Amino acid sequence: MARTRLTPERESELYAAVLDLLGEVGYDALTMDAVAARARSSKATLYRQWGSKPELVVKALRHNKPVSLAEIDTGSLRGDFHAALSRTDDCQMEKNSALMRGLSHAVHNNPDLLQALRELLIEPEVTGLDTLLRRAVDRGELRPDQPALKYVPHMLVGAFAARQLVEDRAVDQAFLADYVDSVMLPALGV
Amino acid sequence: MARTRLTPERESELYAAVLDLLGEVGYDALTMDAVAARARSSKATLYRQWGSKPELVVKALRHNKPVSLAEIDTGSLRGDFHAALSRTDDCQMEKNSALMRGLSHAVHNNPDLLQALRELLIEPEVTGLDTLLRRAVDRGELRPDQPALKYVPHMLVGAFAARQLVEDRAVDQAFLADYVDSVMLPALGV
Repeated sequence: MARTRLTPERESELYAAVLDLLGEVGYDALTMDAVAARARSSKATLYRQWGSKPELVVKALRHNKPVSLAEIDTGSLRGDFHAALSRTDDCQMEKNSALMRGLSHAVHNNPDLLQALRELLIEPEVTGLDTLLRRAVDRGELRPDQPALKYVPHMLVGAFAARQLVEDRAVDQAFLADYVDSVMLPALGV
Repeated sequence: MARTRLTPERESELYAAVLDLLGEVGYDALTMDAVAARARSSKATLYRQWGSKPELVVKALRHNKPVSLAEIDTGSLRGDFHAALSRTDDCQMEKNSALMRGLSHAVHNNPDLLQALRELLIEPEVTGLDTLLRRAVDRGELRPDQPALKYVPHMLVGAFAARQLVEDRAVDQAFLADYVDSVMLPALGV
């Protein structure tokens, strides 16, 4: 079957419809029918283009992140981390947190969703982080045998997850910037 | 109304029934009727003793943690952290992770549950951590103005949340012990 090309604008519209619905009804209640209706598309188009609901949802989430981490290169690890935070404004960060909360439960009942999330969203971010960290090692800013090196993703995820749970407040840029300076750079010996 | 005293053994049985059911059906589907049936008790007793479902669930979760963090006092911060980890064996840790996963979604639709969770489980642990950290400051191990000091709970939560998400593996003692030594103590300058 010929794979019809969607224009980038049309693709963005479809992804926006998916994310809106996801925020409204959650992953489990999200149907391809509802996405088709919201985006004024057809279910056949959605399946032809994305194959499955988990893949469509994760591609829509990834579409939210315009700049790849690996493209950030300010000349210092601290600069790179802070530039990475400024990719996403506070309003978008709150929306992303709400989405991730809604997904965190669904993930454990939907192995397909977890796999798509890992392949399309988590692994590219981890690979991007690795690129930033490797550059810092090459510049001599960071020791290659630093024990905290393998835990950078864990430190970041902790900042996101714990703010809500411990402080009952949404993650924002100011909090993450202070966490980078107070926890991540000292743990990395930078 | 006179408040009947339950024996500690009977209380433990009831909490075990709550946690078993929670793992099986999740928070939203958990009913006081089902707890009463499983524990061979009456719904009236449950409500008299615990007042509400969120309170019963959170007390049952807290019952799982026999030693308060503040009671741990090995003479060094590293010793205290490692002793705190050894309170919970790997099997129990995996059960706790499953419970917390099941609760993380329910928490956002049940403000009563979030409040009980915060008052009965999170705040006492944060207070216990503060006691350990204050002792380390008093011993001169830890600087009182260390910027990472306020983020100790976030670092810990991150270790729990990220292992599953990033590595697709359950949290265990060996992982947490290495995380304490590689991330938490260096970030704290200890």
